Amino acid sequence: MRARPFAHPFDDDKLHEECGVFGVSGVADAANFVALGLHALQHRGQEAGGIVSHDATAGFNSARRMGYVRDNFTKASLMETLPGPLAIGHVRYSTTGAKGTTQLRDVQPFFGEFSMGGAAIAHNGNITNADALRRELIGAGSIFQSASDSECIIHLMARSLQRKVPDRMQDALRRVEGAFSIVAMTRTKLIGVRDPLGVRPLVLGRLDGCGWVLSSETCALDIIGAAFVREIEPGEMVVIENGEVASHRPFAPQKPRFCIFEHVYFSRPDSILGGRSVYETRRAIGVELAREAPVEADLVCPVPDSGTPAAIGYSQESGIPYAMGIIRNQYMGRTFIEPTEQIRNMGVRLKLNVNRALIRGKRVVLVDDSVVRGTTSIKIREMVLDAGAAEVHFRIASPPTAWPCFYGVDTPDRDKLLASSMSEEEMCAHLGVDSLRFISLNGLYRATGEAQGRNNASPQHCDACFSGDYPVIPSDRVAQGFCLKAAE
Amino acid sequence: MRARPFAHPFDDDKLHEECGVFGVSGVADAANFVALGLHALQHRGQEAGGIVSHDATAGFNSARRMGYVRDNFTKASLMETLPGPLAIGHVRYSTTGAKGTTQLRDVQPFFGEFSMGGAAIAHNGNITNADALRRELIGAGSIFQSASDSECIIHLMARSLQRKVPDRMQDALRRVEGAFSIVAMTRTKLIGVRDPLGVRPLVLGRLDGCGWVLSSETCALDIIGAAFVREIEPGEMVVIENGEVASHRPFAPQKPRFCIFEHVYFSRPDSILGGRSVYETRRAIGVELAREAPVEADLVCPVPDSGTPAAIGYSQESGIPYAMGIIRNQYMGRTFIEPTEQIRNMGVRLKLNVNRALIRGKRVVLVDDSVVRGTTSIKIREMVLDAGAAEVHFRIASPPTAWPCFYGVDTPDRDKLLASSMSEEEMCAHLGVDSLRFISLNGLYRATGEAQGRNNASPQHCDACFSGDYPVIPSDRVAQGFCLKAAE
Amino acid sequence: MRARPFAHPFDDDKLHEECGVFGVSGVADAANFVALGLHALQHRGQEAGGIVSHDATAGFNSARRMGYVRDNFTKASLMETLPGPLAIGHVRYSTTGAKGTTQLRDVQPFFGEFSMGGAAIAHNGNITNADALRRELIGAGSIFQSASDSECIIHLMARSLQRKVPDRMQDALRRVEGAFSIVAMTRTKLIGVRDPLGVRPLVLGRLDGCGWVLSSETCALDIIGAAFVREIEPGEMVVIENGEVASHRPFAPQKPRFCIFEHVYFSRPDSILGGRSVYETRRAIGVELAREAPVEADLVCPVPDSGTPAAIGYSQESGIPYAMGIIRNQYMGRTFIEPTEQIRNMGVRLKLNVNRALIRGKRVVLVDDSVVRGTTSIKIREMVLDAGAAEVHFRIASPPTAWPCFYGVDTPDRDKLLASSMSEEEMCAHLGVDSLRFISLNGLYRATGEAQGRNNASPQHCDACFSGDYPVIPSDRVAQGFCLKAAE
Amino acid sequence: MRARPFAHPFDDDKLHEECGVFGVSGVADAANFVALGLHALQHRGQEAGGIVSHDATAGFNSARRMGYVRDNFTKASLMETLPGPLAIGHVRYSTTGAKGTTQLRDVQPFFGEFSMGGAAIAHNGNITNADALRRELIGAGSIFQSASDSECIIHLMARSLQRKVPDRMQDALRRVEGAFSIVAMTRTKLIGVRDPLGVRPLVLGRLDGCGWVLSSETCALDIIGAAFVREIEPGEMVVIENGEVASHRPFAPQKPRFCIFEHVYFSRPDSILGGRSVYETRRAIGVELAREAPVEADLVCPVPDSGTPAAIGYSQESGIPYAMGIIRNQYMGRTFIEPTEQIRNMGVRLKLNVNRALIRGKRVVLVDDSVVRGTTSIKIREMVLDAGAAEVHFRIASPPTAWPCFYGVDTPDRDKLLASSMSEEEMCAHLGVDSLRFISLNGLYRATGEAQGRNNASPQHCDACFSGDYPVIPSDRVAQGFCLKAAE
Repeated sequence: MRARPFAHPFDDDKLHEECGVFGVSGVADAANFVALGLHALQHRGQEAGGIVSHDATAGFNSARRMGYVRDNFTKASLMETLPGPLAIGHVRYSTTGAKGTTQLRDVQPFFGEFSMGGAAIAHNGNITNADALRRELIGAGSIFQSASDSECIIHLMARSLQRKVPDRMQDALRRVEGAFSIVAMTRTKLIGVRDPLGVRPLVLGRLDGCGWVLSSETCALDIIGAAFVREIEPGEMVVIENGEVASHRPFAPQKPRFCIFEHVYFSRPDSILGGRSVYETRRAIGVELAREAPVEADLVCPVPDSGTPAAIGYSQESGIPYAMGIIRNQYMGRTFIEPTEQIRNMGVRLKLNVNRALIRGKRVVLVDDSVVRGTTSIKIREMVLDAGAAEVHFRIASPPTAWPCFYGVDTPDRDKLLASSMSEEEMCAHLGVDSLRFISLNGLYRATGEAQGRNNASPQHCDACFSGDYPVIPSDRVAQGFCLKAAE
Repeated sequence: MRARPFAHPFDDDKLHEECGVFGVSGVADAANFVALGLHALQHRGQEAGGIVSHDATAGFNSARRMGYVRDNFTKASLMETLPGPLAIGHVRYSTTGAKGTTQLRDVQPFFGEFSMGGAAIAHNGNITNADALRRELIGAGSIFQSASDSECIIHLMARSLQRKVPDRMQDALRRVEGAFSIVAMTRTKLIGVRDPLGVRPLVLGRLDGCGWVLSSETCALDIIGAAFVREIEPGEMVVIENGEVASHRPFAPQKPRFCIFEHVYFSRPDSILGGRSVYETRRAIGVELAREAPVEADLVCPVPDSGTPAAIGYSQESGIPYAMGIIRNQYMGRTFIEPTEQIRNMGVRLKLNVNRALIRGKRVVLVDDSVVRGTTSIKIREMVLDAGAAEVHFRIASPPTAWPCFYGVDTPDRDKLLASSMSEEEMCAHLGVDSLRFISLNGLYRATGEAQGRNNASPQHCDACFSGDYPVIPSDRVAQGFCLKAAE
Repeated sequence: MRARPFAHPFDDDKLHEECGVFGVSGVADAANFVALGLHALQHRGQEAGGIVSHDATAGFNSARRMGYVRDNFTKASLMETLPGPLAIGHVRYSTTGAKGTTQLRDVQPFFGEFSMGGAAIAHNGNITNADALRRELIGAGSIFQSASDSECIIHLMARSLQRKVPDRMQDALRRVEGAFSIVAMTRTKLIGVRDPLGVRPLVLGRLDGCGWVLSSETCALDIIGAAFVREIEPGEMVVIENGEVASHRPFAPQKPRFCIFEHVYFSRPDSILGGRSVYETRRAIGVELAREAPVEADLVCPVPDSGTPAAIGYSQESGIPYAMGIIRNQYMGRTFIEPTEQIRNMGVRLKLNVNRALIRGKRVVLVDDSVVRGTTSIKIREMVLDAGAAEVHFRIASPPTAWPCFYGVDTPDRDKLLASSMSEEEMCAHLGVDSLRFISLNGLYRATGEAQGRNNASPQHCDACFSGDYPVIPSDRVAQGFCLKAAE
Repeated sequence: MRARPFAHPFDDDKLHEECGVFGVSGVADAANFVALGLHALQHRGQEAGGIVSHDATAGFNSARRMGYVRDNFTKASLMETLPGPLAIGHVRYSTTGAKGTTQLRDVQPFFGEFSMGGAAIAHNGNITNADALRRELIGAGSIFQSASDSECIIHLMARSLQRKVPDRMQDALRRVEGAFSIVAMTRTKLIGVRDPLGVRPLVLGRLDGCGWVLSSETCALDIIGAAFVREIEPGEMVVIENGEVASHRPFAPQKPRFCIFEHVYFSRPDSILGGRSVYETRRAIGVELAREAPVEADLVCPVPDSGTPAAIGYSQESGIPYAMGIIRNQYMGRTFIEPTEQIRNMGVRLKLNVNRALIRGKRVVLVDDSVVRGTTSIKIREMVLDAGAAEVHFRIASPPTAWPCFYGVDTPDRDKLLASSMSEEEMCAHLGVDSLRFISLNGLYRATGEAQGRNNASPQHCDACFSGDYPVIPSDRVAQGFCLKAAE
């Protein structure tokens, strides 16, 4: 019924967060709130979404759909099938399965019926020993229904000899390596967990005095009018039942390493991470960039939309006027069904257009959040020069992305990453721009509030995509031949 | 099969342009170019779109679809049904028909088979004597297929005794009052016309040395890589055939009155109108506003997205830092099918969220493009105060909208327009903000490049929505009881 | 959204009635009754259907859909859009337009707004001078919206100088040549007309004491529980208003020539035509066939489903046992969307299967209703012989079909009709069967109740498809070069 | 997108077979053959269908769809996703899950990845100890994905310690009670199994000299041109690999008890069961009925379509003429999406109409295959009397259905079965007919070829629905309180 969608024809050349999770308990029609929360988290995953709810009489119900939350989970006819005061949901970007497109069976939450009752889980992150666990579980007679690494968790829970679901989940998660921020539910409990490093975010909110909310980001609390209470801490499990929140510490303590790229790109600018405004951090990155890499120019223009806060900061620090030199078409969606050849070849021009009258004859600083393969950067440079710009200077709000992420972000293989084989100068030549500068790793840390920059002895964040310093060994990938960075 | 869409549940409280038109001749698969052009003009009409093409062997073909261009006219299977080197298209916002939703039969281009061959037309604007013409035509035996005012034109053409389509069109348009920018086609000709006042835009472009393009705006030339040649002049008809452009002047000459609201809001910021960058005009409006209506504040924030250029200008002129205090959710579409009660009540929060960490405790200047009914403005003020702003000052990039438009823009009835019954002070109290200021009409004219402001004796633009000075008497509406502004 | 359907891949090699019409007045929610009536008339047209209704407050409403009545006009959400006590409808088989598939714009009823009010018409039959009328109307400024011959009628009505719709319709129909059974409506009137020859059927029914019904066949009265009142007579127009039926005779009287093929194949066996049960006539054809063309055999088997009554008659008259030697798959629809190559090549085997255990070693008489191109007959013969039949004898319940129909039946061009170029013996050899016999034209007339057979001086029926004796000159076709049968 | 379908609004009051299975190996694009086979088996299950295929390079692929085979598995775009020389498929009638409608996750084939490779299974029948097995498997950590009893088999296979799939399947099936005809596949093997009683059919066919086919019925061999080889025997497992068929006997031998209702109603008349033509058996039932229950009458009419062969037999034995007194509308589908109130209330009149001209004044024998709840029988009696029949005599081609089936047929609860609480006379009064007679159980056995009738000491068939004599104790149902027939 549903044609196979083509991948983004203009390959937006960004890293993509793989998931957002959201859960609500203690309010009527919890699934409606989950739908709104997922809508606010849509930037974390646009391919598919799912919601599971529980109602005392209707039991567990679930709906999983390809496409945007707003196109599916806003319909009364669907939401009526998800009654009850407890619900969790998930939005998903891409698949770990074959063929490059999400299939419905890979869409979370996953549900399992256990001896003492059922549970549903929604997982943001990535299990780095999922292949090994999967082989082991299949050998013991488990039947997998998806290609998702996250399904291991529910099978490990099913085989736990514990009676209570939170205890089963602890059993399961102690076997799991990698990054996980999980929202789960039983008939009566809403559960949130973060891995010991706290790689992915997860926050707790309060709704109307009676309800509790778990969310990947604070921006999704805002949409339902929930108050931000606190972050779930790295290594913490909270179990919410009967309006009470109990906190557990099932894992051996470790020094947290929150993903620094959440600050740079993944999270929404109106979210608060680690007590800091994401927008403010990005603006501060622009300020740092202007200090580290000044240039004489007439205009500072963001590459829409993610470069905007850093461009504002760069303009404010440098005094060069800020301007919208590139305009985004608001009517783009994610994919095209059976597109014409022409659409397939259009690339970024379907989405972006240069403000020609503004750019002509000007020296332009373009601020972007990252350079991954560089393909889009080249097209943007062409468009800006075609429009008559005198000079084009790229300023990038993150250090060179030289290593893949194995903790829940969709990255190309290492050899596709421009920075894995080129120096900054080589990249500048490759992109054909007048200058190209990335923020330094220390500058980035400073912008996140670490006045001293990165503590190399014990880094404050996971920055593996920049540094190659992986806080959890990606064992499945190493088994497949991935070479870790040689010790220095 | 197709559920009836609900109107924008959060009523975005904007005026809406009713149409965009586009045509291409002289290139293979012209319809593909038209599809791209319409995608770039989608902001002028989001409800539906249509394309007609002509091919020597396949004849005329047409496709009309509800929804976005990108969801329909990007598909190879559809575009293959529209072959040939000549094509025109149309995007449509709303209907003049009953029931408030566009029906497929109202979607343009309209096609008519005449004695000497067929023609298709796509019309941007509004015929102000359409009711009278319709009655006359029905009386003579014409059968109307739509509720659209534009259909009169094709019936008038069918009844013309001229043999050539351009001559039939001139016959027809001489009977028509109101605003029209028309792109039309026969088997061999691409035709463009603007009404004598030139209320709506229409430009001519050149494609690849062999093709010609007609477009509502220049931004749609950019997407297909066409060069901007010139504007079609008010009262001009161009007939393009065999690669040649012939210019005709079928109407009695009048002083042009181009719609000033195209500068303020309708057109895309990357378009060029009357030789001026739309973006630059909007930034200049912000500069004028800062001069006319200064205020002590900590931040200047645009109401996304249309307030952005004026907010940049306001910040630059006032020295108050520019910031993204309100964040737009990029995953909103236009309508919801059978939405839940909660979605229906969410209003603007589905689309916008306040950047709480940034706003808290700050005096905020919010720059918006217009206030129509004021409903959205109230919700935004509530959101911003909820987020802890110390003061909220609205600055509006257009004068008070006190009169409906009858020339192709969807406006509420006069009594729904806040400015029709309230002074600026009363509106400020109604909206509950610390201050509210609109740009003056003269300030707006200055920002569009008229250094002396408005020439009241002979205004340079149509500004009827602000001034009540209608350059064409809206005769159908007057017949229905609409009261024109008393002469002063 | 809607892929272009392929024609019946197994080309069922039948003649197809092009339309069924139905109208109801004087009952609440008349459109619901029309939907049921059209469902009962679905055999007369399977490609598309439409309904127009009128309600005092909602005015005229219409819905036209591709596909079966039961898939569209059973839905509450659609039927709610068709309120009121007066409604007419139409089912359609094929198109007179280009490309071989019906387009939505060709689906009736057609609607026209006239000076004194609107009217909708649904037409069964075919206008034989439609091309000439169309040229004339276009020359006078009418704009056609469809490729349908029937649209001429509504344009002629629009141009009539009469004030009342029935008078306009009489004006129009006096210009029209060919076959028409029409159901039409205004805001208050339900109108039925048959052409002077009465080629197509139309009957009047009474519903619940207060309502009136017009229908192509009586079987559609049964489904809504309406009583059969009488046939509309050839050349009669009935106008039903305020519960009263007025009869008019707008045409010069002629001797009726009702289509004899309605008895043989088009009409449903549970309908009554001209006072005779269609089933009984078909059974009588079988009896005649058994007398005219006896054969020694073991079994008489119908070719499902239309051969069944004649096979029963043949068995009863001959004493050879009746048996279901060929089984029809009940899950076949009309067309396939983008079928696999294999489906395309399957032919009749997708629909029919031989009852092998029954047939093996037997001498089988296969009774079918007609042979058109012979393609299906050959496949059936192959299947039956493959299953081990000892002998295969075809008996055909109609005379050889040697001439195309121009009065509302979809027939191949003359050179595609097997009987146009072959004698019975040649056809027998071509089909490869042990014997082949058609009923004689006189035999067929006898079975319809004409004890003396055909009155060649003044035939009782239109039998042009068998005799080449066209009661109305098909002037458009003759102008295109069609050769009438030479006078004998 | 997909509204929840309503159950048959006119409740056709039949028992429904729950499934058909089909598998092909050794030919290119095996899935295309499976699609055709499933189309021929559509009468065994109309709600949904699924196909799994295996290709050396593409691995396992599957597609499962709601609706008819012909609407889904005929499309090239879908079938291209199912490559390879090995494929199995399944059509499904109803669900064992909650809510009365099949959900996609309940649609077979089910697939499991095991340590030594994957397998897919398609199951016709019903596991009578599925609840107990499910509890046991969940206790051991298996996660179920559907509400289907059949899923137990794949979990039992996953937990088997055997290495080869056929051995795992034997392990699994030895734990299973009830009826099963299974078609399964691995990467290289096509497997067929029947339970020891052989309750459901399964046959072996040969295709083109190189391929092998497994099918529920022989009619599905015919459609792909496969030759019937033999039935899979009760208790037999065949493993087809590299073109060789190996036969195994994994179960303790038992006397077979093939379902007698397959002869009466479920199977298609063109299939061969146990060496006998189904059509011929049904005709023989009519002959037996005419002997057991003669009546003076004018016409013998089948209740379409399943009563037809028995009516032919009754007519032939009694000498009363056979006639089509009730006509079936060929354009009925299975369900309606959100039907109008009127459609919901139409009942059988949407599907059947009485041939009024034929029936009036006649004494009619109506031959139907079974009486379940009697609801349809009452409506048919009303229709026939309304049409003016003088007398109505029901003759039923099966004994009274007094007990539910637990072996793969959808039956109402016992208290809904008319025959569970009424004698033949009481039923006659309840239905309001002039006479009502069922064939005797011995008469039915005789018609199936058992000249001596039923061997009560060791019945030749499963006839539990008539006799209450259950060959396998339905243990799950007994645990839920179902009372078996007291020993006599």
